Amino acid sequence: MTTATLDAPASGIDHPFVKALVRIIRAEDSYGSWEKLPDAHVIKDYIVTREQRRAIPIIEDPDPDVLWRVEKFYSAVAIAIEQATGKMASPMMKMSHEGFGRVILTTGRLVVVVKSLRDVHRFGFDDFQKLGEAGQKLVEEAKAMIAEFTAVADY
Amino acid sequence: MTTATLDAPASGIDHPFVKALVRIIRAEDSYGSWEKLPDAHVIKDYIVTREQRRAIPIIEDPDPDVLWRVEKFYSAVAIAIEQATGKMASPMMKMSHEGFGRVILTTGRLVVVVKSLRDVHRFGFDDFQKLGEAGQKLVEEAKAMIAEFTAVADY
Repeated sequence: MTTATLDAPASGIDHPFVKALVRIIRAEDSYGSWEKLPDAHVIKDYIVTREQRRAIPIIEDPDPDVLWRVEKFYSAVAIAIEQATGKMASPMMKMSHEGFGRVILTTGRLVVVVKSLRDVHRFGFDDFQKLGEAGQKLVEEAKAMIAEFTAVADY
Repeated sequence: MTTATLDAPASGIDHPFVKALVRIIRAEDSYGSWEKLPDAHVIKDYIVTREQRRAIPIIEDPDPDVLWRVEKFYSAVAIAIEQATGKMASPMMKMSHEGFGRVILTTGRLVVVVKSLRDVHRFGFDDFQKLGEAGQKLVEEAKAMIAEFTAVADY
């Protein structure tokens, strides 16, 4: 599906957030089957081009694999927040069967990130750079919230 | 199971939190099948005596009915928080299959209630009074959090 991306130099694959996500995904590889695969391959399913996105129907239940990828994306955000602030963040996701939902990340008593999800079937990013920026944006949001309401985050 | 409770005057059934829970449960009664039943009957499954609790095995997946009751309990807490503070609270629950989990209630960017759940299979209260007190305790906790961190709740 993304061989074009793999043949070209995978721009954005060195983005710090993308690296955090690769680590999370590799941590799930209990049998070592991805050990020799390049990073770009391990997270290739996060890249969904505009055309691919349009071709994915949103009338049925989202694929469990997509839900897994969404979860891992927010786990990576949580870990990146901890690296950036020294404070643990925990994600909670609530999904309807139709692909709508909400994910929040909390640190202490503070909601550091809140995101509405819709059309989760089509979850993905144009390229690794966009993936990295999307994750980093959430990390920055969390950092700003923690800076503003430190007492609540430390509660 | 709880006929003893029903024959006796159902002490605690007029507790404000218990009334809120009854309203929530009755709101689910789309076919009007509980219309003529007394409040104590509608929420009778929330009462689990010490002996009954001990008899419930916790080795299998919790009954979906129990999970439903836990959800409605926290929905009632959310509504009671809104009545007490004028601010909306939304619950999110994350359960493992083994009956362990966590529920949080958020108002704006503030986590007003956080509760670890375990042995959810045995979720229930000794009597209506205890049920009312348990819900009210969470409402008071939320009120105190909102009073202390109003800016975060209003964010």
